[in-house]
Amino acid sequence: MLMELIRARERGIIIGSLPPGPLNRISDVPGVKVGHCTLAEGDIQTGVTVILPPPENPFIEKLPAAAYVQNGFGKTLGLIQIDELGTLETPIALCGTLNVGRVHDALVSYMVRLCARDGIHLTSVNPVVGECNDGFLSDIQARPCGEAELLAAIAGAEADFPLGSVGAGRGTSCHSLKGGIGSASRQLELDGEAYTVGVLVQTNHGRLADLRLPDGRKPEADFIRLHDGEAPDKGSCMMVLATDAPLSDRQLRRVIRRMPVGLIRLGSYIGHGSGEICIGFSTANPISLRDSRDILPVQQLNEKKIDLFFRAAAEAAEEAVLDSMLCAGPVTGWQGHHKDSLSEIFG
Amino acid sequence: MLMELIRARERGIIIGSLPPGPLNRISDVPGVKVGHCTLAEGDIQTGVTVILPPPENPFIEKLPAAAYVQNGFGKTLGLIQIDELGTLETPIALCGTLNVGRVHDALVSYMVRLCARDGIHLTSVNPVVGECNDGFLSDIQARPCGEAELLAAIAGAEADFPLGSVGAGRGTSCHSLKGGIGSASRQLELDGEAYTVGVLVQTNHGRLADLRLPDGRKPEADFIRLHDGEAPDKGSCMMVLATDAPLSDRQLRRVIRRMPVGLIRLGSYIGHGSGEICIGFSTANPISLRDSRDILPVQQLNEKKIDLFFRAAAEAAEEAVLDSMLCAGPVTGWQGHHKDSLSEIFG
Amino acid sequence: MLMELIRARERGIIIGSLPPGPLNRISDVPGVKVGHCTLAEGDIQTGVTVILPPPENPFIEKLPAAAYVQNGFGKTLGLIQIDELGTLETPIALCGTLNVGRVHDALVSYMVRLCARDGIHLTSVNPVVGECNDGFLSDIQARPCGEAELLAAIAGAEADFPLGSVGAGRGTSCHSLKGGIGSASRQLELDGEAYTVGVLVQTNHGRLADLRLPDGRKPEADFIRLHDGEAPDKGSCMMVLATDAPLSDRQLRRVIRRMPVGLIRLGSYIGHGSGEICIGFSTANPISLRDSRDILPVQQLNEKKIDLFFRAAAEAAEEAVLDSMLCAGPVTGWQGHHKDSLSEIFG
Amino acid sequence: MLMELIRARERGIIIGSLPPGPLNRISDVPGVKVGHCTLAEGDIQTGVTVILPPPENPFIEKLPAAAYVQNGFGKTLGLIQIDELGTLETPIALCGTLNVGRVHDALVSYMVRLCARDGIHLTSVNPVVGECNDGFLSDIQARPCGEAELLAAIAGAEADFPLGSVGAGRGTSCHSLKGGIGSASRQLELDGEAYTVGVLVQTNHGRLADLRLPDGRKPEADFIRLHDGEAPDKGSCMMVLATDAPLSDRQLRRVIRRMPVGLIRLGSYIGHGSGEICIGFSTANPISLRDSRDILPVQQLNEKKIDLFFRAAAEAAEEAVLDSMLCAGPVTGWQGHHKDSLSEIFG
Repeated sequence: MLMELIRARERGIIIGSLPPGPLNRISDVPGVKVGHCTLAEGDIQTGVTVILPPPENPFIEKLPAAAYVQNGFGKTLGLIQIDELGTLETPIALCGTLNVGRVHDALVSYMVRLCARDGIHLTSVNPVVGECNDGFLSDIQARPCGEAELLAAIAGAEADFPLGSVGAGRGTSCHSLKGGIGSASRQLELDGEAYTVGVLVQTNHGRLADLRLPDGRKPEADFIRLHDGEAPDKGSCMMVLATDAPLSDRQLRRVIRRMPVGLIRLGSYIGHGSGEICIGFSTANPISLRDSRDILPVQQLNEKKIDLFFRAAAEAAEEAVLDSMLCAGPVTGWQGHHKDSLSEIFG
Repeated sequence: MLMELIRARERGIIIGSLPPGPLNRISDVPGVKVGHCTLAEGDIQTGVTVILPPPENPFIEKLPAAAYVQNGFGKTLGLIQIDELGTLETPIALCGTLNVGRVHDALVSYMVRLCARDGIHLTSVNPVVGECNDGFLSDIQARPCGEAELLAAIAGAEADFPLGSVGAGRGTSCHSLKGGIGSASRQLELDGEAYTVGVLVQTNHGRLADLRLPDGRKPEADFIRLHDGEAPDKGSCMMVLATDAPLSDRQLRRVIRRMPVGLIRLGSYIGHGSGEICIGFSTANPISLRDSRDILPVQQLNEKKIDLFFRAAAEAAEEAVLDSMLCAGPVTGWQGHHKDSLSEIFG
Repeated sequence: MLMELIRARERGIIIGSLPPGPLNRISDVPGVKVGHCTLAEGDIQTGVTVILPPPENPFIEKLPAAAYVQNGFGKTLGLIQIDELGTLETPIALCGTLNVGRVHDALVSYMVRLCARDGIHLTSVNPVVGECNDGFLSDIQARPCGEAELLAAIAGAEADFPLGSVGAGRGTSCHSLKGGIGSASRQLELDGEAYTVGVLVQTNHGRLADLRLPDGRKPEADFIRLHDGEAPDKGSCMMVLATDAPLSDRQLRRVIRRMPVGLIRLGSYIGHGSGEICIGFSTANPISLRDSRDILPVQQLNEKKIDLFFRAAAEAAEEAVLDSMLCAGPVTGWQGHHKDSLSEIFG
Repeated sequence: MLMELIRARERGIIIGSLPPGPLNRISDVPGVKVGHCTLAEGDIQTGVTVILPPPENPFIEKLPAAAYVQNGFGKTLGLIQIDELGTLETPIALCGTLNVGRVHDALVSYMVRLCARDGIHLTSVNPVVGECNDGFLSDIQARPCGEAELLAAIAGAEADFPLGSVGAGRGTSCHSLKGGIGSASRQLELDGEAYTVGVLVQTNHGRLADLRLPDGRKPEADFIRLHDGEAPDKGSCMMVLATDAPLSDRQLRRVIRRMPVGLIRLGSYIGHGSGEICIGFSTANPISLRDSRDILPVQQLNEKKIDLFFRAAAEAAEEAVLDSMLCAGPVTGWQGHHKDSLSEIFG
């Protein structure tokens, strides 16, 4: 592809008022890494994306976490236990809709081995697997992502990961154009120390007719017609947030509920067919399985300061969604279906 | 006040794609009426607004209803039972934050009398009372709204009710300017028949620095400074939706969750201090207390069509919020505090 | 009344395996006090009960708290904000169903004054008011409890408070007999230190036909007939839990969800007409309004130990419900209606 | 095994007051069938159980459904969409904890084929898979249940299915003894017509020290010691309810919340480690994917009658749990671990 895929900020589109981190990615949160396994051959245009929290073995060092279902017309696995216990104990994996069972099983295998290495015979674990429906561009019934693909994604995880039509974003669509993986971050200060909020999205939602860019631009009527831009909003948007600030699970839930603000600013109505799921975790206050104390000392954000995080979550989500489109090159896949890139609009 | 208070649509600002009803108010839903009692003297700038559903006695003809808490930093009363039973059995009243207990009690008195007239000795009833904090413009500790004020609002209820700095919107602020009562409606078609979605809001949320108008205009830096437009978002927004389409309580909950989309489009981040509460009811399928059948025939929307309602809810909420500001004349109240009108921007 | 009202434990009925605190009341949690105002004259058999958490002004020293709605066919006020912010900022008041608005308003007055004394001009506060329907024994439309009654209950609050047909339990019924206020506590150990879980209930639920005592005894058929013991379960049960152990709001919610276990063991089916509401707070980790730090150090229970609290909550709730009946003397009230005491069964 | 496995009712233990259906199983609800695939060889003591709702293809004829999470320390898949849309579109499968991903994927395969037969290219489907942790008796990391096992369970589904140590109940434990699959039903009448409520449970919860039988019997101290009956409650209980009465999704949720009443009556405290998940569906009012009407006529239970269903759900769940134990023969499995049968107590 010859088209240049340039991020919003590099194009001079500044979203919100808080400064981004150095990579402007979820991985600006220290220790967080992201890996993709991309399958792109003919009818198969799909993949796996993993978000790795910093603990080498999150089953042993569980992280405070929360989930929020903005629209539950989706198949994300693993949220019940997050709601109950307020912790994350595996990496978070994203993939195509019908593939979640296989990736869930692959995560079990991965965790069994990881725990065996650490001397634990694992008998129960809660894999978290999100999804979008990439059935327009990929043969979704094929479910090609299994253990090999998950392990490849994990092995390749790094802080400076690619965005756009990669991994679980390979086959997704957004506002009738090519969607994909987007990410952004925001920095803020508490008690004189710097903290980061990072967001990663897998975008597959919205209609072109509803899109409005941060600078007010809207797509032209001809362009909308050309791209079937009034078709119903079918899809999903997965939103993952990480922070190194000490938010409790309740505070995390409040914060991740503001990620949809970013989607809405770009024009989403949170359509019926679009499952919107938010997951968040904090890398502060890991809870060690091996801690034998009955009462644990933890840090907790003063609620008075939570507006900073609301703003960071909304801004980063808006930028991540926009970047997921701007960084996504066009893809032709299943039965010759094709999605163009938003970068065409900008040239 | 000499300033002209002109609604958005009259100014040529068209929000969304669905047509409004004849009054462009919640009362376009047949049978729904709204009444205000406005207290505006010196330090007291507050009031009561009531939304009357069509049944003369909603305790006898309960309506399918749902509630949704977008941000629970608020004091709305009566939502637990709506969640459990999916029905509304009283008018909905709105007032100032510290006044909810008195208005709750006044609604009990009103319902006791209404039921006595209908031969029912009322021993339990679930009044629904929402609120915003109008303590900047009104002496909020005074709690001046009681039975007389509620009855006045009910007595004056009509379809063509005033908007802006009236009733429960008398003392509220929105995006650092004068907020108030807004309303809008949208029409749609099911099986060849016309239906209406109507929204009423009591706005008291947002910062001026975050405001963006539907045509892309943003307030200038000087104007923001002048109006303390970067102060934290403290307040609330009450959102009430009515429809004559046969939505179940679950479907209503899905629909009212899209009202905040309207707020967000105008710039709200759903701030920490801003309780955002959504309540909705359908006038189809009233459930009669006197129906002795064990199984009741009801109508229900085919879920495939629910996107129409999502769009209607978001569009009407956005327009209602904007109109709540455009129709709100400036108010000077408690300790000389003052809020200007958005209409100033437009002239 | 000549009948002796003897608590279960004094009768040799030992519920569960954990030891009670010295008073076997919620007030075994250090600093917690309970007060009643009882109105018992003719048609008026009702009252107010207040649970005072230890901080002198809970608006300034907010406590971690949680609410759980087991059956939302009830009118409890103030739970939305507890759900959102996870804190309690007023005493908890209990009364009769139609009286909640007046008591809510009375709590506002009380808090306004309390805060004024502490130099705070209060403009927003979240009173928590629970209720049961005492309309069988008391003229419920009269709503006699207002500011004077609330203040009397607060003024009389103490650790060694009376149980049974007092305060908000004056007019309630339980399993077709006289219900009322019950309380119990359990002691447990964490890291070698002693902690307490205390429960208070206002009982107004259940049918005599369903009652089963902890020792297996069930009421005889004649006795059931005599007391209309197959009438539908209309009423409610309010359940309040306090602890000095450092539970987070999420942990508190998990714990208070086990209080209904106690009701169920005594025979409740959690009937349709019986609103069952649970509220809990921890006196550890108060959050000071005046703390200017952005990040606060707190203590938190190791989740591995939470089963102890589940058991304590269930045991204490069962004993509290039973004691609410055993300590409740018979009452004759509105229109000559009468409820007998469970103590009659035991003699 | 020589021990006789006799159901509670055949032993003269009558639970509750409503009459059971002819099979006293969930399959008394017309059209509901249940199938098992049991794996019982050496270290592998596990299996799959499927509950088949009546529509041949539930993706085309979706059923009103609800889920309720009593304790979310579990890995059940598919509940988010049930919560959002209130419908079930696949059979419900149960298996061992680590096996849920594979069974989820197997259900996708099954539904893809079923839909292909009906002319639908399936691109999205929401399999519902519940689980208990059978890792004490079975090599849980082996995850032996895949497509072949699921298809075998479906192929063998019938109304008169076996109970006890079969299918997903092969390796489970309950109150420190052998648990398994239990089922029961209750009949009730609405408007002069007969309706059925049926329950199926997969039991893996509770401690022997807490067990109390409906006739008041408790296990002796020696017996408790012998069976490690004070070990922590680790496990889960899956509870599935079906009815042919026209309950809405909200009404179903209210009803299934009463199934834990049955567990509690037998002694469960709903322990920390025991995920308790309830799922329910109604076979009335199937919603056809092919119905092109915007508004659909449906039947709905008059809420006044819902207490009947609460009672039926609680009674049937209690009996189903007890039968899951009484019908479960002893099993020896992984590493020689062994669980005895409750039938030993009765002889």
